[in-house]
Amino acid sequence: MAITLYDLAGAEADRRFSPFCWRTRMALAHKGLDVETVPWRFIEKDKLPAPNQGRVPVIVDGERVVHDSSAIADYLEERYPDRPSLFGGEVGRGLARFVQNWTETVLHIGLIRLVLLDIYRHLDPENQAYFRQDREKRFGTTLEEFVGDRNARLPAFRASLDPLRRTVERQDFVSGKSPAYADYIVFGAFQWARVISDFEVLAADDPVRAWRGRMLDLHEGLARRVPAYGG
Amino acid sequence: MAITLYDLAGAEADRRFSPFCWRTRMALAHKGLDVETVPWRFIEKDKLPAPNQGRVPVIVDGERVVHDSSAIADYLEERYPDRPSLFGGEVGRGLARFVQNWTETVLHIGLIRLVLLDIYRHLDPENQAYFRQDREKRFGTTLEEFVGDRNARLPAFRASLDPLRRTVERQDFVSGKSPAYADYIVFGAFQWARVISDFEVLAADDPVRAWRGRMLDLHEGLARRVPAYGG
Repeated sequence: MAITLYDLAGAEADRRFSPFCWRTRMALAHKGLDVETVPWRFIEKDKLPAPNQGRVPVIVDGERVVHDSSAIADYLEERYPDRPSLFGGEVGRGLARFVQNWTETVLHIGLIRLVLLDIYRHLDPENQAYFRQDREKRFGTTLEEFVGDRNARLPAFRASLDPLRRTVERQDFVSGKSPAYADYIVFGAFQWARVISDFEVLAADDPVRAWRGRMLDLHEGLARRVPAYGG
Repeated sequence: MAITLYDLAGAEADRRFSPFCWRTRMALAHKGLDVETVPWRFIEKDKLPAPNQGRVPVIVDGERVVHDSSAIADYLEERYPDRPSLFGGEVGRGLARFVQNWTETVLHIGLIRLVLLDIYRHLDPENQAYFRQDREKRFGTTLEEFVGDRNARLPAFRASLDPLRRTVERQDFVSGKSPAYADYIVFGAFQWARVISDFEVLAADDPVRAWRGRMLDLHEGLARRVPAYGG
C-alpha cells in the first residue's frame, strides 16, 4: 500500500512548495516507495492525522503516522533498511544534521527575504488572510516591505552559498558521488523557491544551478513534474 | 616506524598553530598511529620533503610523502582501513567536504580577522618579516589595521557559527555521537585560534565552546598538551 504524504499546496492543488515536504518527497523516491500525496493548506490544521504539530509533512504508512521531516527520514531509514540508504551510516547521519542546520540558518533565512510575498500570491483568499496575519506578526513588518529590497539582497544571498558552491563544483552532489538525504535537505530550499517564485535566485553560470539541475533530473525528473518557474 | 609530520611552529618550537596541521594531527591520533612531528617555519620551504607545495602539513610514511591535509586524510583512510574510519563511508566523506568548505569560507575567514596579528607576535624576526610582507600584500592592509576592529566584528563572527552551534547543541560531535574527520576540520580552526591568540572567540556559555572542550579531551587530551591560551 502506498504511503500517504500530507503535502503543502497553494490555491492550485498541484503547486507544492514546502521545503520540508520536498525533503520527504525526495526521500520516499530515494527509497523507491510509492506515495500518494494529499494537498494540504495552512489553515487545515484539523485535517491532519494525529499525532501532528499542525504542520506538514506528515506521512501515514499503514498504521503508523509520522510527522516532522527529520523524524520521517529517520523512520524511513529504520523501517526500510534494505532500500538505498538516506544517510550512508552514522557519520553521514550526523553530518546531514550539520547540513540541515546550515540550510535552515543560512539558506532558508536568505530565501525567505526573496520569496515570502510570492508565497502569498499563490494562496487562496482564506489562506492569504491567515498567512499575512501570521507572517506579518512573526516578522514585524508587511510582506511587501519584507521582500522590498530583494534585488539589493541578492548578492549577499549568493555569496552565502559559498560552502555549497565549492562543494558541488568539486563533486556531483553534496553527499559525494551520489545524492543522499543531505542533498534533499538543501534541494528542498531551492525547490521551494522555484515552485513559488519567478525570481531566479541563482545566476545562470552558478555551479549551484548546475547541481540543482542534477537534482531536478533525479528519480525520473520527479521535481520537474510540478508547476514551477524557470531552472 | 612512526609517521613524520612537518608541523607549522612559531618562534617556540612547540607552539603549533596551523589549522590544517591540526586536522592531520587529530586524524593520526584517531587512527591510533604514532607520529613524530618536525617543527617547520614559513620560510623553510626547502626543508620539506618532495613532493610538496611549500606548505604544511606534509607527512612521511615509510617511503611515501603525502602533502595537503585532505590528501593526507584520504591516504590514511585508504592505507589504514582496519583502523577507526575518518569518514564512516562515502556519504560521510562527501559531507565532510561540505563541512570543510564551510570551515574555510566562513570560519577561517572570520577568525583571520580576529587573530592575524597574534600569529605575527609568535614568530621569530625572520619569519615576522616574511609574514608581514606576504600577508599585507595579500590583504591589502597592515596586519594592525586588519584586526583593528576585532571587538566590533566578534558578534557577527559568533552569529556565523549558528549552523555549528545548533549541531553540537543536539549531538555531541559534528559527525554525530562520535568524532570523525569533519570534527577535526572544524576543530583545527578553533585550535589555531587558541594556540596563537589570547583573544577568546567563544562566549563562556556557547555550546560550541562545550564541544571544543570535548575535542580537547580526545585522544588523551592531545590538543591540550601544547602551549595555548584559555579554553
